[in-house]
Amino acid sequence: MKFRAHVLVSLKEGVLDTQGKAVRVSLKNMGYGSVEEVRIGKSIMISLEATSRPKAEKQVEAMCDDLLVNPLIETRSVTLEAI
Amino acid sequence: MKFRAHVLVSLKEGVLDTQGKAVRVSLKNMGYGSVEEVRIGKSIMISLEATSRPKAEKQVEAMCDDLLVNPLIETRSVTLEAI
Repeated sequence: MKFRAHVLVSLKEGVLDTQGKAVRVSLKNMGYGSVEEVRIGKSIMISLEATSRPKAEKQVEAMCDDLLVNPLIETRSVTLEAI
Repeated sequence: MKFRAHVLVSLKEGVLDTQGKAVRVSLKNMGYGSVEEVRIGKSIMISLEATSRPKAEKQVEAMCDDLLVNPLIETRSVTLEAI
């Protein structure tokens, strides 16, 4: 079976998001004064082959632990769909 | 009213995603042979103030057009929630 996993990686609350800050300042300078905060994260789409949904979930979680997410400063949310 | 907009920016199909390719190769080298494709995009969370939901939507769409999204190579999906 084929699956598509969507991993959303965000910086933890309290971790300084320099990229988000730069975007917020740019937006303000462009006239968007109503913007209060901007936080930027990564969206990772993974297409993979697995024999079952639990196995696919387990694999994606392992990939997050091994490479995709730095748990010291980031949080993740994973959604999985069969395709 | 306060709103939080989530803008998901992805590379269009057919646009070479070098970062995604590098991640795919790394995952394969780490033993995740079942991975077929990896695509990496940006997730942008914007907290903003607006007098109504339509106005907030309009503002966020304008920000995407003006700064956040390059329509030549990227697509976006916007979701908005009142907070």
